[in-house]
Amino acid sequence: MSFSHEIEKTVERALAEDLAWGDITTQSLVPPELTGQGTLLVKARGVLAGMEIAALVFRKVDPDVELEIRVRDGERVEPGTAAGVARGRVRSLLMAERTALNFLSRLSGIATETSRYVEAVAGTGCVIADTRKTAPGLRLLDKAAVRAGGGKNHRSHLGDGILIKDNHWQALRLQGLSLEEGIRRVRAEAHHLLKIEVEVKNLVEAEEAVRAGADWLLLDNMTPEAMEHVVKALRGKVRFEASGGIDLSTVRRVADTGVDVISVGALTHSPRALDISLELEY
Amino acid sequence: MSFSHEIEKTVERALAEDLAWGDITTQSLVPPELTGQGTLLVKARGVLAGMEIAALVFRKVDPDVELEIRVRDGERVEPGTAAGVARGRVRSLLMAERTALNFLSRLSGIATETSRYVEAVAGTGCVIADTRKTAPGLRLLDKAAVRAGGGKNHRSHLGDGILIKDNHWQALRLQGLSLEEGIRRVRAEAHHLLKIEVEVKNLVEAEEAVRAGADWLLLDNMTPEAMEHVVKALRGKVRFEASGGIDLSTVRRVADTGVDVISVGALTHSPRALDISLELEY
Amino acid sequence: MSFSHEIEKTVERALAEDLAWGDITTQSLVPPELTGQGTLLVKARGVLAGMEIAALVFRKVDPDVELEIRVRDGERVEPGTAAGVARGRVRSLLMAERTALNFLSRLSGIATETSRYVEAVAGTGCVIADTRKTAPGLRLLDKAAVRAGGGKNHRSHLGDGILIKDNHWQALRLQGLSLEEGIRRVRAEAHHLLKIEVEVKNLVEAEEAVRAGADWLLLDNMTPEAMEHVVKALRGKVRFEASGGIDLSTVRRVADTGVDVISVGALTHSPRALDISLELEY
Amino acid sequence: MSFSHEIEKTVERALAEDLAWGDITTQSLVPPELTGQGTLLVKARGVLAGMEIAALVFRKVDPDVELEIRVRDGERVEPGTAAGVARGRVRSLLMAERTALNFLSRLSGIATETSRYVEAVAGTGCVIADTRKTAPGLRLLDKAAVRAGGGKNHRSHLGDGILIKDNHWQALRLQGLSLEEGIRRVRAEAHHLLKIEVEVKNLVEAEEAVRAGADWLLLDNMTPEAMEHVVKALRGKVRFEASGGIDLSTVRRVADTGVDVISVGALTHSPRALDISLELEY
Amino acid sequence: MSFSHEIEKTVERALAEDLAWGDITTQSLVPPELTGQGTLLVKARGVLAGMEIAALVFRKVDPDVELEIRVRDGERVEPGTAAGVARGRVRSLLMAERTALNFLSRLSGIATETSRYVEAVAGTGCVIADTRKTAPGLRLLDKAAVRAGGGKNHRSHLGDGILIKDNHWQALRLQGLSLEEGIRRVRAEAHHLLKIEVEVKNLVEAEEAVRAGADWLLLDNMTPEAMEHVVKALRGKVRFEASGGIDLSTVRRVADTGVDVISVGALTHSPRALDISLELEY
Amino acid sequence: MSFSHEIEKTVERALAEDLAWGDITTQSLVPPELTGQGTLLVKARGVLAGMEIAALVFRKVDPDVELEIRVRDGERVEPGTAAGVARGRVRSLLMAERTALNFLSRLSGIATETSRYVEAVAGTGCVIADTRKTAPGLRLLDKAAVRAGGGKNHRSHLGDGILIKDNHWQALRLQGLSLEEGIRRVRAEAHHLLKIEVEVKNLVEAEEAVRAGADWLLLDNMTPEAMEHVVKALRGKVRFEASGGIDLSTVRRVADTGVDVISVGALTHSPRALDISLELEY
Repeated sequence: MSFSHEIEKTVERALAEDLAWGDITTQSLVPPELTGQGTLLVKARGVLAGMEIAALVFRKVDPDVELEIRVRDGERVEPGTAAGVARGRVRSLLMAERTALNFLSRLSGIATETSRYVEAVAGTGCVIADTRKTAPGLRLLDKAAVRAGGGKNHRSHLGDGILIKDNHWQALRLQGLSLEEGIRRVRAEAHHLLKIEVEVKNLVEAEEAVRAGADWLLLDNMTPEAMEHVVKALRGKVRFEASGGIDLSTVRRVADTGVDVISVGALTHSPRALDISLELEY
Repeated sequence: MSFSHEIEKTVERALAEDLAWGDITTQSLVPPELTGQGTLLVKARGVLAGMEIAALVFRKVDPDVELEIRVRDGERVEPGTAAGVARGRVRSLLMAERTALNFLSRLSGIATETSRYVEAVAGTGCVIADTRKTAPGLRLLDKAAVRAGGGKNHRSHLGDGILIKDNHWQALRLQGLSLEEGIRRVRAEAHHLLKIEVEVKNLVEAEEAVRAGADWLLLDNMTPEAMEHVVKALRGKVRFEASGGIDLSTVRRVADTGVDVISVGALTHSPRALDISLELEY
Repeated sequence: MSFSHEIEKTVERALAEDLAWGDITTQSLVPPELTGQGTLLVKARGVLAGMEIAALVFRKVDPDVELEIRVRDGERVEPGTAAGVARGRVRSLLMAERTALNFLSRLSGIATETSRYVEAVAGTGCVIADTRKTAPGLRLLDKAAVRAGGGKNHRSHLGDGILIKDNHWQALRLQGLSLEEGIRRVRAEAHHLLKIEVEVKNLVEAEEAVRAGADWLLLDNMTPEAMEHVVKALRGKVRFEASGGIDLSTVRRVADTGVDVISVGALTHSPRALDISLELEY
Repeated sequence: MSFSHEIEKTVERALAEDLAWGDITTQSLVPPELTGQGTLLVKARGVLAGMEIAALVFRKVDPDVELEIRVRDGERVEPGTAAGVARGRVRSLLMAERTALNFLSRLSGIATETSRYVEAVAGTGCVIADTRKTAPGLRLLDKAAVRAGGGKNHRSHLGDGILIKDNHWQALRLQGLSLEEGIRRVRAEAHHLLKIEVEVKNLVEAEEAVRAGADWLLLDNMTPEAMEHVVKALRGKVRFEASGGIDLSTVRRVADTGVDVISVGALTHSPRALDISLELEY
Repeated sequence: MSFSHEIEKTVERALAEDLAWGDITTQSLVPPELTGQGTLLVKARGVLAGMEIAALVFRKVDPDVELEIRVRDGERVEPGTAAGVARGRVRSLLMAERTALNFLSRLSGIATETSRYVEAVAGTGCVIADTRKTAPGLRLLDKAAVRAGGGKNHRSHLGDGILIKDNHWQALRLQGLSLEEGIRRVRAEAHHLLKIEVEVKNLVEAEEAVRAGADWLLLDNMTPEAMEHVVKALRGKVRFEASGGIDLSTVRRVADTGVDVISVGALTHSPRALDISLELEY
Repeated sequence: MSFSHEIEKTVERALAEDLAWGDITTQSLVPPELTGQGTLLVKARGVLAGMEIAALVFRKVDPDVELEIRVRDGERVEPGTAAGVARGRVRSLLMAERTALNFLSRLSGIATETSRYVEAVAGTGCVIADTRKTAPGLRLLDKAAVRAGGGKNHRSHLGDGILIKDNHWQALRLQGLSLEEGIRRVRAEAHHLLKIEVEVKNLVEAEEAVRAGADWLLLDNMTPEAMEHVVKALRGKVRFEASGGIDLSTVRRVADTGVDVISVGALTHSPRALDISLELEY
């Protein structure tokens, strides 16, 4: 994980949502000196992500609570796996519980879903990537979870990658400009270490994009057959990303077309939380 | 929606994730003076939520962009519904698009899922409630989306509701204290307008909780039969919430037990994003 | 005290007001290596509150300064009591002094004033509560000080308690709605663990409120006689809070009417600071 | 008032305390389209301060609410004075009410108390000043209220004024340094537009301070007789501030000693809130 | 300029430094109703940058002050050029003056310095780029100023470009890994639209980098002769950036070696402020 | 340095600019367990400033990295001086490097430039002061660097010093007010420990300012001869600051006129960064 300051703020915000006005129940009933331990118990098969974040949650609630991490991000878990054990004041464990689990179950859900796609394309050489369809405020963490699941990140935001979509191309046409001129312009603006990807819908557009200097083509919402057609025609001259409505049932077929990357919005926009609970003993 | 300052900060953070370093592609290719309109096109059946947030996203990116809201939060939509139309600089529409859709599709996904549960229990008098299992940083919005879907909110955080869970009860026992004494203590700490709910696992615990003065019982992870048993025994003396592993296939059966509220974590921890896109014309 | 992040920010803001541009006098005249100790000397009779905050102030200015707390929040103090001793660099003690004392003397002033009211009603079973009339930005701390003084908190903010005031009732009338319908509506909106309090001015309104389902009545600005009248008529059906212009000279009389809670704005809107100083030795 | 950004944040924080989770009662019962007006009704004799802040509170809750200011900060008010009228959605008026009044009644309380001291010394040429004993987080506003009451501000914080207190002098002695050397050192550190004040307890110290180059003397906790003695001996060579346990009953006597400034901590550490309410009509 | 929220915060912070405690002189002497105009008068030859920021400064101090922009960012100015005219309250003009000029003169200084390098290499096809050597907190603005001066930005931060420096290569060697393996690893981690640049010190390293798959070479601290040697040997297989101690006297010689980009830290780490003042008339 | 909270936020913001999205290169290639050391190597003659800030940067990136400070702020350095040694994870050293150097080289550049002016006036008794022409967001640090270079700070912001400039004087004239009346007004507004400086352009204005009660005169943009004239005429009645277009070639001549302070904007608006690098060994 990168420079932790941004992530600390994300964790502090999440805790503020739940604890800014205290935990009346716990503070009334659980004496501060009572200590114990809580086991992060996984209840479903999957891939773990977010253990460092969960540890940070516990530490922020109470610097004396230590989370022993037994399963690292990216490792597979089964129902019954004890992913970690937090030890300290029971009061603090109870107050941190929900926020820690909210991070952990969402991020593990993303990692788990990603790993399913990665398995589905195993052996094809094709990689699974995420998109910018992340939960607002959680992009850094959502994308780390995709990596934990064996996927790859696409660009982080609109400033660190160039993707000329149909709307941009349309804007060029309205100005009477060719795609080649567009690529020249964006190369002049962007820093020199960025490649250029162009969204295309068919072979004609794909060929124009390659002539104009595209490094990558985004084959958006095309049938596997159409993708295959484009890939065969242009292999070696450009590289290929596929996207658009691809799910677990179709991803293998798409990977078999020879595309290099398949990006899947559902990894981060619709992950099912992995069922994990905190089992307390004291 | 409540005092908008918190929500503005949530939107600003989401925009900062995507746009802090600009949108190189759009800023290079789309001239600032080009104007047009973008239609928020719904592609699946569901219930809308988050339109005001989407409007705020557009306005934050460009105060001159106005989103005409055609479908209000809580209304049903079908594939093809134009939920709203944003008008202004194409550049701004493109830069705001992803962030607006990320909010709108998550929140509408929550509203849609909620509405399914609400329909499933229609006529029983039972209400569907959310939990604190929200995406970190989005609690206020996730909970508004549940209301848009016809559900009810449970407590917002650990400070505005009293819920004595098994771990609290266990802490009482360790101190040699009765539940009644625990309820007395929490009533002394909490403000006088809060009711007290106690989590129970069977009739014995339920009866003890009622004797101790509980206003509500949380029947957690019980079978419908066991719930029915408790509800029949204690109806009129207390009210009942059911939770724990209840899904669309079982929710009606649970509602038929006579419980007053069913809380469902999946509404907010695992919603499927509603498919909505921005169709630009210019 | 609850999750400390909010409180840390409050302390940091207070320190920034006083120290953002340094302390020219101290930094010019007191060598960094000079160490000593400062005693928090109480100069008036009262009840202490805010010791943990004072400790936090010293620690924020200099992590090496430790405040030994000798008197806990809620304990009585007399002129001459040494509430605590801070040890470390004299420079840091001088720089933290004013901010630590500003917190401590305000909060102890609130606790002291509260304790006077609590004593005045001793034996009646009536409790003294605060209001939302706190110093802007200090609600969490002001309310903790009330608890330290033996009082009880009322709701924390407009979102964690339902209080139907005359203006709300008036709004219902303008819409042609009964109070009963109003209570139904607010119950539908609010989470199920919140009770409902209704402000009334006489027995007629009180009876209507009880019929409509109020859990609590707020007897606002009524004479003790009128309160007595209402309490006698409705005891057992509802509970009673008194408020409005009640001071130390009248609070006992009000408590004797049989109300359950008396809320007093003056506890937090007009507390006299408790006189406390930092006596340095080195 | 100065650059409003700091003040806006203070207002936003105060609103967040009260409204971050909404106002369930008002939002359930008062329809958004209902409009009306609320009069800021003063109920006690005093001096007003904080009207611009109150206006800002209303505007932050709802940009469509306008507060017509009828009495400016610094003007006298009597019971029954209508200080201002806010017009707009009743819902917004109710949601902003408490926060607006919390600012207005505290700040007017400070202005009123200040005006009493100012009147008490009228004709002596002596001015009344505040101290750094302000409510944490409210220094800028508390000090503006003192000005509204006819008082003068002392330094704002530890960085914009030099005050050599007994503890600093003591630190000099421990280092074997004279006060003169101390003044030389602090002049070398501080910018050239700052004068130097030295706290003294008797004539011997006062004479030493004047010889060492002090511009002002702080006569701290001295009897009026002792002050008179010092003032007579040193008039013309230095100027004089008195402080320490001076209240309304003694302030005139102190002013008559010939001191130039009397600083009073109670103005800001223990003001009684001025009783002001919002009377709604709709 | 990109999403303005980040930039607004930068401007607010700068204003807070200068105006958080007001402007005593101006607020005491300039009546609020006095209006006038201030001309941004350029006093040296250069290229302007930061006009929109200056406008934002005026607007933040006083929403009624409008800055008429007469010279756009990137345009050349001569001594005597009136770059813009601000109109409104004289009080606000005086309070905003220093902060507006601090931004404008720094940013125009950067643009001016950049333009000198750009002119020096005119006709060679080589572009001038900045580095990450910006003033802390001002990266976005410093880099916009480089563009205004005709330069190009290098990567914005450590997350949006891959540059394998000698220390990274050294770390690879310590692990017994080849550069090729290193490039494979970083490609696996980074998103697919990023190119890879490798820092080299001589032809041997350059050839190894090209074989390993580098897209760009950073020729760091090499003599022009050595650069020429590398460029000739590898032209067509890779592209070239030069950096390290290049100044205005040597930049043309370096450009003539055939490198594609020359990056110059001095553009942003040591710009001379362009002399600009605000001339008031009223 | 003063209360460190403000400075911590400045450092966090600078790190966020460079590292919010991680360091892809380093995180891909340098294993987390690899440790080493980095020497802060000075490459030019100068005066150091910012070492504590650099230490803070390393600590914020990785609490386990310790910077051993070998040269303190204010000490002279030569090419080859090892100013400090940072030890810890190589990964962290590489990620913190640029931000640490950006602070250190700017601040040392300011200290170095200041020391040149201080030397130039050595023996005259005249001191060199800074201005408010600092990099936006860095005023506290820029001013600390001036002190490290042997200079003195002028006022920090518009609220902690009174300087009546020509525009203020002009505003007085427009109101038909004398300078004396203006000084009376500003004395009434400002706290009593502030002196008053008046900007003058010639002897006539200077004499009027002295009669009106000015403590200091700002001789702005006058020739040395004219300054001498004014200083001779008014010595003993007032003190003198010179400013306006004074550079290293003229500063001695100006100091010889007998002025007390010379303020130089270039110290902070146009410092050349001191060349310092981080040499890694592992």
